[in-house]
Amino acid sequence: MYDTHELTRRLQKNNGSKIVMVVSDGLGGLPQEPGGKTELETAKTPNLDALVPRGNLGLSVPVLPGIAPGSGPGHLGLFGYDPLKYQIGRGVLEALGIDFELGPNDVAIRGNFCTLDAAGNISDRRAGRIASDIGAKLCEKLDKITIPGVEVFVRPVKEYRLVIVFRGAGLSGDIDDTDPQATGVPPLQAVARSAGSAKTAEICNAFLAKAREILKDDAPANFLTMRGIDTLPQIPTFEEVYGLRAGAIAVYPMYRGLARLVSMKVLDAGQTLDDQMARLEADWNNYDFFFIHWKYTDSTGEDGNFAAKVQRTEELDAAIPSIMALKPDVLIVTGDHSTPSKLMSHSWHPVPTLLSADTCRFDPPAKFGEASCRAGGLGQFEAKYLMLMALAHAGRLEKYGA
Amino acid sequence: MYDTHELTRRLQKNNGSKIVMVVSDGLGGLPQEPGGKTELETAKTPNLDALVPRGNLGLSVPVLPGIAPGSGPGHLGLFGYDPLKYQIGRGVLEALGIDFELGPNDVAIRGNFCTLDAAGNISDRRAGRIASDIGAKLCEKLDKITIPGVEVFVRPVKEYRLVIVFRGAGLSGDIDDTDPQATGVPPLQAVARSAGSAKTAEICNAFLAKAREILKDDAPANFLTMRGIDTLPQIPTFEEVYGLRAGAIAVYPMYRGLARLVSMKVLDAGQTLDDQMARLEADWNNYDFFFIHWKYTDSTGEDGNFAAKVQRTEELDAAIPSIMALKPDVLIVTGDHSTPSKLMSHSWHPVPTLLSADTCRFDPPAKFGEASCRAGGLGQFEAKYLMLMALAHAGRLEKYGA
Repeated sequence: MYDTHELTRRLQKNNGSKIVMVVSDGLGGLPQEPGGKTELETAKTPNLDALVPRGNLGLSVPVLPGIAPGSGPGHLGLFGYDPLKYQIGRGVLEALGIDFELGPNDVAIRGNFCTLDAAGNISDRRAGRIASDIGAKLCEKLDKITIPGVEVFVRPVKEYRLVIVFRGAGLSGDIDDTDPQATGVPPLQAVARSAGSAKTAEICNAFLAKAREILKDDAPANFLTMRGIDTLPQIPTFEEVYGLRAGAIAVYPMYRGLARLVSMKVLDAGQTLDDQMARLEADWNNYDFFFIHWKYTDSTGEDGNFAAKVQRTEELDAAIPSIMALKPDVLIVTGDHSTPSKLMSHSWHPVPTLLSADTCRFDPPAKFGEASCRAGGLGQFEAKYLMLMALAHAGRLEKYGA
Repeated sequence: MYDTHELTRRLQKNNGSKIVMVVSDGLGGLPQEPGGKTELETAKTPNLDALVPRGNLGLSVPVLPGIAPGSGPGHLGLFGYDPLKYQIGRGVLEALGIDFELGPNDVAIRGNFCTLDAAGNISDRRAGRIASDIGAKLCEKLDKITIPGVEVFVRPVKEYRLVIVFRGAGLSGDIDDTDPQATGVPPLQAVARSAGSAKTAEICNAFLAKAREILKDDAPANFLTMRGIDTLPQIPTFEEVYGLRAGAIAVYPMYRGLARLVSMKVLDAGQTLDDQMARLEADWNNYDFFFIHWKYTDSTGEDGNFAAKVQRTEELDAAIPSIMALKPDVLIVTGDHSTPSKLMSHSWHPVPTLLSADTCRFDPPAKFGEASCRAGGLGQFEAKYLMLMALAHAGRLEKYGA
């Protein structure tokens, strides 16, 4: 695992050029039967197709062949951070997903409300999947817990899921889960895996003791377990490693959070693709790199709705002229992973990718799709190298060695 | 970064076969507009084209996607030495470029003549780009400097550029540049970055003091700065890692120097391609591997002269029958990087590569060019793996593992 940032730190130069990376979440798909077309191949994408002979197609392997990534590693790869080197814990991802602004002194924990029986054993690990409003009210109560030496934040996620954050000096995430992953047994104590996390484990246990008291008369959610106890990974900033001022235009909190992880500036994206395009235009002169996130090619794939994924792809295509009107030096359209509606889940299939720039060895005209990408000039590449190509085509890298 | 030489040391065997690697410097190019052809695609290359169905095409990535290499890393990669592991300093490369035979006890330094004002500040970092003959005369004076404990060599490069070499036991290159990269400030002292380089820094400063005295009445070149203070990297020999006796047939000193870096035998290449072919034939029985370097596809690309690059490519093609007449077991034609005339510089674009051998899974007939190479049987590969393929097709590698 060579750290490409050792190169980009040395070779970066600023020539004022602009790069736009459009991430259509879960873009890659599958045909429903042999001889069939994928969602992207079915979609009418005249604007993207028009860019093919002005650029290159290729297939991005998010992590390694066969590995289906979550949103975290999927995006880190596209941002040029090796997703096998930088691992994001579940607690951190859950906090990012509700737009909680994590800092370097925070420990983030994914909590699950659960049901304890009279003997103190877990009878339901998800507390009957309580409604979100009930979970939110319980979180309000827990948010009032005070523990000497740290700030405590408790925030609802959805249904039985919550986030707990402890903020203070010298905290560590090196602590086992308290969820025993079984019923009929008591929840576990928080146990430090190393000497440096003993203090944080004590804080977890103090919190759990107070929570047990507060929740004892509630039903079915009369306790909670902790999972994925984590601190923010040490991630160098996008500006430091690439020399790019980066702005993120994402509607969903998770993707704003992932952009914040690499210290992109999170811009007000509004609610619609039109809002996102308006933001891009308004902030065009303020940044060198724009990350634009489009969620719905993933969510429709997860729903198993082939036709809806086709339609959402066509909506994205319709926004391309607004981007091209700004004359970016490099436009990339890709995905963080595939989400074939046939599988109703993230998958490992390489992701169709288009890179358009004047310095391409241009591809012949083609419909933008999985099959044409397989034959494209970018070849099949690991996602973590995409930023190197973006920088090269933007004229932002010096020669390596003499 | 797996060191492939761990494998080749174990697996190499000698079957008397012959490998010829022709490096057409900067071979890869770009079309001038969408739908256009590259220089190589434009060139008439009947002899190379005839080898396509007797071999494989592919695209070589010199270092990593997006990284445009200098000549040093470009050639090290082709020779099978990871260009991210073996880094060659500027001083060493400059010495190689003037055919100076560096040894293991040498520290090589790139010097720049500069102009100091009356206050001792740099007023011109390049001394008005003095003519080469003036620089050469100043170097003759500086070459007479003596410093106890080391031999001193001062050689002109071109205009204001020179090379200084100190030869002696226990020298180190771990020293900062003395060029402040600015005018209006004095040149810096040579400062050791570690205890082991303190002695060498003293030698640099003693040299600079004597040079200041010798040059003080000259104008505009009345002093010099030092950059890229370096020793030869520790590079295992070509013969040791591959079991190949290698001969280099290169007209330009830089490429003879790069061949010498990996301990190839540098042969008398004459001045023309005909001279190089005559040398190849004359020495055919004396070596197992021949590196033949053709400079002009790079220099014409650097000049931005598309037509001249096409013509230089055709000249190389005309030499191919002379090579094939010797019946090499493996012929490779590739480049150390691309130099598109559109960009007038080295670039990161993968390099068209042809490997012809009887053991190929032969490609269909095609014109040798970037587009056909993208579809070729070698695929897209990192340059550092090319030597493995050469050895395999030459029958010079045992099976790995039982």
